[in-house]
Amino acid sequence: MLPKALETLIEALGELPGVGARTAERYAYSLLKRDRHVSERLAGALAELHSGVKQCPVTYALIDAAENVSPLYSDTARDKQLVAVVEEPLDIIALEKTKQFRGTYHVLGGAISPIDGVGPEQLHIPELIERLKKDHVQEVILATNASVEGESTALYIQRHIQESDIEDIVVSRLARGIPVGVDLEYADQITLTHALQGRKQLS
Amino acid sequence: MLPKALETLIEALGELPGVGARTAERYAYSLLKRDRHVSERLAGALAELHSGVKQCPVTYALIDAAENVSPLYSDTARDKQLVAVVEEPLDIIALEKTKQFRGTYHVLGGAISPIDGVGPEQLHIPELIERLKKDHVQEVILATNASVEGESTALYIQRHIQESDIEDIVVSRLARGIPVGVDLEYADQITLTHALQGRKQLS
Repeated sequence: MLPKALETLIEALGELPGVGARTAERYAYSLLKRDRHVSERLAGALAELHSGVKQCPVTYALIDAAENVSPLYSDTARDKQLVAVVEEPLDIIALEKTKQFRGTYHVLGGAISPIDGVGPEQLHIPELIERLKKDHVQEVILATNASVEGESTALYIQRHIQESDIEDIVVSRLARGIPVGVDLEYADQITLTHALQGRKQLS
Repeated sequence: MLPKALETLIEALGELPGVGARTAERYAYSLLKRDRHVSERLAGALAELHSGVKQCPVTYALIDAAENVSPLYSDTARDKQLVAVVEEPLDIIALEKTKQFRGTYHVLGGAISPIDGVGPEQLHIPELIERLKKDHVQEVILATNASVEGESTALYIQRHIQESDIEDIVVSRLARGIPVGVDLEYADQITLTHALQGRKQLS
């Protein structure tokens, strides 16, 4: 019933995460109603995506295809002996936005999740261990997600470092507690437990 | 902080209706993680969109660029003397899915909305009047949305037909009432009023 070009687009848009037939229809129709340069710009950006982006061979962050290493690593102002370990490249953006971190990053490429068939061997853990030795890292911050998978991954890495021959290294984890703006009565039990255990002495 | 190719894509995806920065990031990152042919297929579909689709010069439905007139109009099995007037091309799909309508369609290209600067002159109303005459239409079903804009558009067209020199034409409107599966207690007052007024005698 729909023109073939429109149907092909609706089908292709349906590949985006969480986009069903209705949403894909709405996207396609809105692009059709707008100036053709909007869809052409999107088409161009998509065509350039894979060739324009690569993984940093040291930190596994996403970098321009023209770069050798992540600018967040090559920047001499950043402390290479302080490493934040994150699951995904976009987690770096979240941490960078705080402007509070002057160390470097290491992207695992996911979290250990037996259900999804992701074991530690699929993550960049051996490369992390190598880097901890090579850069004489003094502190590694495990900044994985606060999910079951993130917690198990952090635990796995912590044990892995303990069992390795790396000495004099501090392994830390992001604090768990009540996020800004949340009323105590709405906080869940586990978060409150973490907040109690991690309470800060004021004086 | 992000590779340029990824940032360009996130920006372009942000042009989709209802897609903010976070959703655009999620879409872009998911495409990056998947096989490159997924984004290339989407890029191709986008590039072909405007050249592959055009408006039917009679019904204003969306048709393949290679076609002259909408297949739903040229089909001899369909009753040209029965016309359903809809706001947007996608409304045709919704009505066709019922498999209950054997007439033809006329797309207005929107609804009268002074706030959005859409007046009756921007809609395909003169072309509708022409068509009612030319095809000797016997019934026109005003299938605009049940919104304020849809209702005013229907009212406007109804008056326009009455004031024209077209005689012996039935102008009807889709029934208003309680949709399937909705409990009476949750139906709004206006819908219930419509349902009462439009009640059907059973015996």
